Amino acid sequence: MNRKSSGITAGNPIRCKAAIARKAGEPLVIEEVIVAPPKLREVRIKIICTSLCHSDVTFWKMEHPPAIYPRIFGHEAVGVVESVGEGVHELVEGDTVIPIFLPDCGECTDCLSEKSNLCTKLPFRLSPWMNREDTSRFTNMNGETLYHFLSVSSFSEYTVVDIAQLTKIDPSIPPNRACLLSCGISTGVGAAFKTAKVEAGSTIAIFGLGAVGLAVAEGARLRGAKRIIGVDVNQDKFELGKKFGMTDFVNSRNCGNKTISQIIIEMTGGGADYCFECVGLSSLVHEAYASSRKGWGKTVVVGLDKLDATLTFNSFEVLHSGKSLMGSYFGGLKPKSDIHILEKRYLDNELQLDKFVTHEVDFMDINKAFDLLLEGKSLRCVI
Amino acid sequence: MNRKSSGITAGNPIRCKAAIARKAGEPLVIEEVIVAPPKLREVRIKIICTSLCHSDVTFWKMEHPPAIYPRIFGHEAVGVVESVGEGVHELVEGDTVIPIFLPDCGECTDCLSEKSNLCTKLPFRLSPWMNREDTSRFTNMNGETLYHFLSVSSFSEYTVVDIAQLTKIDPSIPPNRACLLSCGISTGVGAAFKTAKVEAGSTIAIFGLGAVGLAVAEGARLRGAKRIIGVDVNQDKFELGKKFGMTDFVNSRNCGNKTISQIIIEMTGGGADYCFECVGLSSLVHEAYASSRKGWGKTVVVGLDKLDATLTFNSFEVLHSGKSLMGSYFGGLKPKSDIHILEKRYLDNELQLDKFVTHEVDFMDINKAFDLLLEGKSLRCVI
Ligand SMILES: [Zn+2]
Ligand SMILES: [Zn+2]
Ligand SMILES: [Zn+2]
Ligand SMILES: [Zn+2]
Repeated sequence: MNRKSSGITAGNPIRCKAAIARKAGEPLVIEEVIVAPPKLREVRIKIICTSLCHSDVTFWKMEHPPAIYPRIFGHEAVGVVESVGEGVHELVEGDTVIPIFLPDCGECTDCLSEKSNLCTKLPFRLSPWMNREDTSRFTNMNGETLYHFLSVSSFSEYTVVDIAQLTKIDPSIPPNRACLLSCGISTGVGAAFKTAKVEAGSTIAIFGLGAVGLAVAEGARLRGAKRIIGVDVNQDKFELGKKFGMTDFVNSRNCGNKTISQIIIEMTGGGADYCFECVGLSSLVHEAYASSRKGWGKTVVVGLDKLDATLTFNSFEVLHSGKSLMGSYFGGLKPKSDIHILEKRYLDNELQLDKFVTHEVDFMDINKAFDLLLEGKSLRCVI
Repeated sequence: MNRKSSGITAGNPIRCKAAIARKAGEPLVIEEVIVAPPKLREVRIKIICTSLCHSDVTFWKMEHPPAIYPRIFGHEAVGVVESVGEGVHELVEGDTVIPIFLPDCGECTDCLSEKSNLCTKLPFRLSPWMNREDTSRFTNMNGETLYHFLSVSSFSEYTVVDIAQLTKIDPSIPPNRACLLSCGISTGVGAAFKTAKVEAGSTIAIFGLGAVGLAVAEGARLRGAKRIIGVDVNQDKFELGKKFGMTDFVNSRNCGNKTISQIIIEMTGGGADYCFECVGLSSLVHEAYASSRKGWGKTVVVGLDKLDATLTFNSFEVLHSGKSLMGSYFGGLKPKSDIHILEKRYLDNELQLDKFVTHEVDFMDINKAFDLLLEGKSLRCVI
């Protein structure tokens, strides 16, 4: 991705390449598209780097609504501002930004509160459009509308994103690292760092050692966790996990006649102080809850299951356990302010992003990124 | 209850009166019983006052295990030490104490931690015995064994309680107030004060305005809550609730075509900061959760439902709400230390206990206390 932008493109449609999903689960097709100029409070950006996140794959596999095609996926990225729409004073051409699927309007009660990251004015919604109006900025050469994904759609050389979903970052951060802060890694680090506020010296258990789960380990390590237990079906993840500070491993396919929680309770003499469910499997949430220490254990739901999945707990267990359950969306991070904490940690060599990037491919080879993630070979493949 | 104790009873069985439950749901029968001397780490106390708590009634109604008869109910009380068993150095004859159903051994990880009130060494169990061994200290004149309740059994002139379940209190507190600190009122006050740590200026919603629910209001008032919304099926509770600082009332039988949570979200412009389920109805827990503010709302389960009841949540709702769910057992209070905080607040005229006592009856009329509670006429009836 190295198409040059120029001042003359501002206000005009841009013709560029994008990777289009035309059917659930089928390879993306690189096509020429027209990207309309940004409207009110919108910004058109040139994507420098994008990376593939599990949510892209989850929705790309989906055949029924909210699935919709043809669509441009991608939401983890870093870009440079090409032009800004009316009413945008926060950014100028040339600024380096990351798009974030969660809006932060900066004005509503939630955005002004330290406690919430769920904007009320522009609430997150699973729509195929921009977030202020139900319209698309993408068409193809036949005039066909192409749908957005999470109001980001970064699998395109250019895209239009709402100002509420853009965070300006330090341009000195290498783009193939900066893009990781845009979704998955921030989600995991934030879950440990902000949602759970892991205490130094504590024990944590992570269910699912994909990029998000390993980012939880990274966040817990930054917080001074003493013991980090990884749980996964794949034994190879143990060696990988060690690079992220993991001290113990439970192979959930190899628990004999015990449950995962029984094993963790035995290992820790009562349970982990914090448990994180990063697979997106409702049945595992209860196992995580059961693995957490009575009296004070916190269980954090990080993984996205099917939208109609339910979580079930025994009422007396909840009443009498002293445990708590919480969700962590985008790691509980406020897109506009908290990202700068992670940015600073990275620049101070505390937050390690390099180890998350296992592969890099050309934009033309974007389908290879899907294959690598589906085969469990990649954590993050930068495109 | 004013039988005199004397030094000569120490080491010998005591013959006294107790109220025996012989069959589920049937009136208690006052009978002569023999109370054995306290064994290792046990204390025999003369009950000065006891009061009727909902848990007594819940278990008295129960026909199947863990129900067991004949049994001596009662667990909210204040008493005076008559004699101590071997190895008891913490208390001496004449000390004023309250029994607490939740043990606090003072030695295990949990009892030494500020974060837990669930003793590991002597875990709370729903057994019909003393808590260190499966034996009873009660027999009747025919040699029949009478079962304990919550290892307290305060519906007797004398009872034997483990040292881990006794907290010494200031004898200047009137007994008909002190006994309230033994269970229900502490549970409610603690749920707001300790478990939820209600912030000053916040809005809370309480589901179920029995004694525990109103005690939550009292705890929230002490913490400086600005708005306290009560939810109950009984409209009369609104006037009552005002005495406890309640500012708003939702009659859950009168919501029209709206749910309780829809009404609370409208009233508060988004939901309550803290919601407390005090009825013990699993279905209401979800309504409480739905009534809590997205972004930061906390829902606290305080009420005891059937032991096999389940709580169900939508997985995406938990992930994407920023809300948390926690249980509060005995208000999250540590029996040995936190009770003194409430004691001090009472002596400083901050915690108001008087308004909880709606009735007083003689021990001989104990069944009247059951009737009053069943009819919803009493908050606390002191016996
Ligand atoms: Zn906002
Ligand atoms: Zn993502
Ligand atoms: Zn203990
Ligand atoms: Zn009680």
